[in-house]
Amino acid sequence: MTKGEETRQRIIEQAAPVFNQRGFAGASMQDLLDATGLEKGGLYRHFPSKQALAAEAFRYAVARNSKIRTAHLDEIASPVAKLRAHIDHFVTKPSCIPGGCALLNTAIESVDTNPELRELAVEAMEGWRTRLMKIIQAGKRAGEFRANTNPRTLANTIISTLEGALMMSRLERTRDPMRDAQSSLDALLTLYSEA
Amino acid sequence: MTKGEETRQRIIEQAAPVFNQRGFAGASMQDLLDATGLEKGGLYRHFPSKQALAAEAFRYAVARNSKIRTAHLDEIASPVAKLRAHIDHFVTKPSCIPGGCALLNTAIESVDTNPELRELAVEAMEGWRTRLMKIIQAGKRAGEFRANTNPRTLANTIISTLEGALMMSRLERTRDPMRDAQSSLDALLTLYSEA
Repeated sequence: MTKGEETRQRIIEQAAPVFNQRGFAGASMQDLLDATGLEKGGLYRHFPSKQALAAEAFRYAVARNSKIRTAHLDEIASPVAKLRAHIDHFVTKPSCIPGGCALLNTAIESVDTNPELRELAVEAMEGWRTRLMKIIQAGKRAGEFRANTNPRTLANTIISTLEGALMMSRLERTRDPMRDAQSSLDALLTLYSEA
Repeated sequence: MTKGEETRQRIIEQAAPVFNQRGFAGASMQDLLDATGLEKGGLYRHFPSKQALAAEAFRYAVARNSKIRTAHLDEIASPVAKLRAHIDHFVTKPSCIPGGCALLNTAIESVDTNPELRELAVEAMEGWRTRLMKIIQAGKRAGEFRANTNPRTLANTIISTLEGALMMSRLERTRDPMRDAQSSLDALLTLYSEA
């Protein structure tokens, strides 16, 4: 990495929590300058616009979260156990970037206001679902899931339930909704894996 | 209603979609003036601040959604059927106010930035969960749910799954995640109501 690339990466990492906590519209230029310790000219030297910086900060946040939430899954042989471990990672490891789940936050804010950020959120959502669907399909082939298990339905339900529970847990400042989501998803996985 | 009260109510109804689509930070004074057709002075005559108007718009949106989503539930005798009808209302009747679910949107934006709006979202969430828990408790007394069904866990799971699925459906512009959520919640309700 050149010195310029290093600075660029540092700016992205320092801006990510600002966008994640305050939203794109809520993050002011002053918030970003405070977080990065730069002058306006210094920031614009690396990013042509707030939009360009927000896009990079989102990509960075998604990559970080994805890495943490899928860590060590390859070491687990059973597809059902893999899904349970993924759910457990989501429930027990809070987002590494302050402000909760960047995908959820960006999806909510961008839908009616920011097509470019929305597109990035759509891609991240597709990536997550595809990953879960592949595990579920492997589980069907291995006979761990009932033959009539719909991979998309189950993958979408896991994502919906986890993201909705994260929203509730952050709002209410209690881990109860996350634990409740895990317990219900566990029951659902057992249901779909019973012969 | 006096003429002043009528104007105030009209402003709330016209501002609600602006806040719901653009968020509190994203809704500019100009957006609010455009939506209400007022001059700045006219708006401030009725509301001392953007915050005060946003709080009333949120209360209005929650009351409208709650009315639609619990309509006719009293006419259904069986608690399990009541829950299924509630889920069906949520899945089939899109929010009456453009921009999706005001509770979800406000929860996400307010958590780290706006204590007053967060407090209103906490109250709305508690109201929704309490309502669902009462139905589940009635279902346990009537023998429709297994004795070991945890009312809070099931209520939180219904809310998480629906809200997460609404986020996905709006992001991806397809009803699939909502239908998938309904199908999974149906399976879960059947599981908890089997003897």
